[in-house]
Amino acid sequence: MIVVKIGGSRGVDLAAVAEDAASLIAGGHRIVLVHGASHETNQLSESLGHPPRFITSPSGHTSRRTDARTLEIFQMACGLMNQRLVALLLARGVRAVGLSGLDGRLWQGERKAAVRAVEDGRTVIIRDDYTGSVERVDATLLRMLLDAGYTPVLSPPAISTAGEAINVDADRAAAATAAALGASSLLLLSNVRGLLRQFPDESTLVPVVRRSAIEEFVGLAEGRMKKKVLGAGEALDQGVGRVIIGDARRRGPISAALAGEGTVFE
Amino acid sequence: MIVVKIGGSRGVDLAAVAEDAASLIAGGHRIVLVHGASHETNQLSESLGHPPRFITSPSGHTSRRTDARTLEIFQMACGLMNQRLVALLLARGVRAVGLSGLDGRLWQGERKAAVRAVEDGRTVIIRDDYTGSVERVDATLLRMLLDAGYTPVLSPPAISTAGEAINVDADRAAAATAAALGASSLLLLSNVRGLLRQFPDESTLVPVVRRSAIEEFVGLAEGRMKKKVLGAGEALDQGVGRVIIGDARRRGPISAALAGEGTVFE
Repeated sequence: MIVVKIGGSRGVDLAAVAEDAASLIAGGHRIVLVHGASHETNQLSESLGHPPRFITSPSGHTSRRTDARTLEIFQMACGLMNQRLVALLLARGVRAVGLSGLDGRLWQGERKAAVRAVEDGRTVIIRDDYTGSVERVDATLLRMLLDAGYTPVLSPPAISTAGEAINVDADRAAAATAAALGASSLLLLSNVRGLLRQFPDESTLVPVVRRSAIEEFVGLAEGRMKKKVLGAGEALDQGVGRVIIGDARRRGPISAALAGEGTVFE
Repeated sequence: MIVVKIGGSRGVDLAAVAEDAASLIAGGHRIVLVHGASHETNQLSESLGHPPRFITSPSGHTSRRTDARTLEIFQMACGLMNQRLVALLLARGVRAVGLSGLDGRLWQGERKAAVRAVEDGRTVIIRDDYTGSVERVDATLLRMLLDAGYTPVLSPPAISTAGEAINVDADRAAAATAAALGASSLLLLSNVRGLLRQFPDESTLVPVVRRSAIEEFVGLAEGRMKKKVLGAGEALDQGVGRVIIGDARRRGPISAALAGEGTVFE
C-alpha cells in the first residue's frame, strides 16, 4: 500500500502523476492519492475579491487564515482539483473515486477554538478560524474501495467532532492516512527535488534522514517543507515503512520516488 | 430504495431535508440523494465575472451555456453544495459520502459535439459546449456503499465516454439513477408544491399524472419543470415504481412526498 500526496503548486505535472499511478495500479500496487489546493485557493480567493491571508504561530508555523468565506473557497478549490485528478485517472483506466475528508467522517479532528498568531510582534487570538488537524482516520471506507478495485483520491477539508468542515494540512493528513492504512510507503511529491539543506539550491538535496535527526530538519525547513518533515516524522512514528519527499515535476514521479529519488526518511 | 433529488434553488430547506433523511434512514430506508447547484452556479458565475448565459434549443428546451470556464464554475458550485449537504447529514448521524458523476464513472454519457441554439430567431451551432446527458449509470459503487451503511450524495458533472466532465441535468440524472437501482420511488423536490396547471398559481396543483398523459404535461410545463416531467416519464418507463414532484421548502419534505403530497406520476 502506497499513499501519494501531490502538492497543489505550480510546476506539478498532474498528467504525469496520473500516468505513473495508472501503470503502478495495473501492475498490482494499491495506491491512495491525497492532494491539497494551496495555489488554486490563492487564485480563487483573489478572483472572488477575498485575497488570501496567512498567519504565523508563536512557534513559527505558517498557515492560511481560514474564515468562513475562505473555508468555502478552499472547499471549492480542493473539489475542482479533486475532479481534475479523478478525470485524468479515469482517462487512463483507473477507477478513481474522489472523496473529501468529510465523507463518512474519513478525516476527523478538532477545530482549534482559538488560534494564536503573531502580528507586528504581538500575539493575537483568532476565534473565527476554521482550522484543525486530522486526529482520527477511518480507514474502513478506503479499504472497502481498494478491495473493490477503486482508487481513492482524497482532499481536505476534514470534519470536526462538532460537525464543521475544517481546513487541515494535506501533508499531515496524508501522513495520518498512511499510518491508518499501515502503508509501506508515504510519498510527498511537490515542485522541489526533496528536502534541501539550503533552499532553493537543489544541489544541497539531503538524500537520507534518519528518524533521530528529524527534529533538527524541522528547524532547518521553511514554509510548506516544515509540514512535510513533520508529517514524515509522524508517519514513521506510527509505523509507516518509509517516507520519501520527491519531485512531481517530472515523468514517472511516483516510480522515481519509490526508487529512492528525493529525500528518504527511514 | 428511494432516490431523492433536491433542487438547488432559493427557498429550499436543506437542513429539513437532512433531518428527514436521517429519520427515514434510521428507520431502515435506503436513500440516495441527488442534487444540482443552478442557483449557486449563477451566483458564483456573477462573482467571478463570467455571468451565466442560457440557450434555448429549437424544440424549446432551455439549458445553461457551458463553456470550459462555466464547466469549472459549475463543478465548484456543485462540489460546495455537495459538501454542505454531506456535513448536514453527518451532523445528524448519517454516514454520508459525497460523489460526483465522475467517480468510478458513475454517470456516463455522450458529450454533445454540436449544440443547436436559437438566437434572435436564427438557429446557431455551438461546438465548445460541455453538456450531455446520462446514458449509463454504474450502480455497483452505489450498492456497495449502501450495503455498508453509507448514504451516497450525488451531484453532476457526469463523465463523457471520451473522459471529459460534462454538465448534465440533475433531475434526469436522478431519474436514470433511480432506474439503475430499481428504486421504488423517485422524489423530485424543489421550491414548488408540484406540477402546476397554471404556474405560479399553487391552487392549480396537478395531484396525479398517469403515464399516458405525460407528453401532454411536458408541453404544459415551463423551464426546469419540463426536465422534471421528462425525468418522471423516463423513470417510469425504466421500471421505477412512482415519481413524485414535491415541495422542499417545508419540514419533513421527503416523508410528505412519500405520503403523496405533490404531483404523483404512476
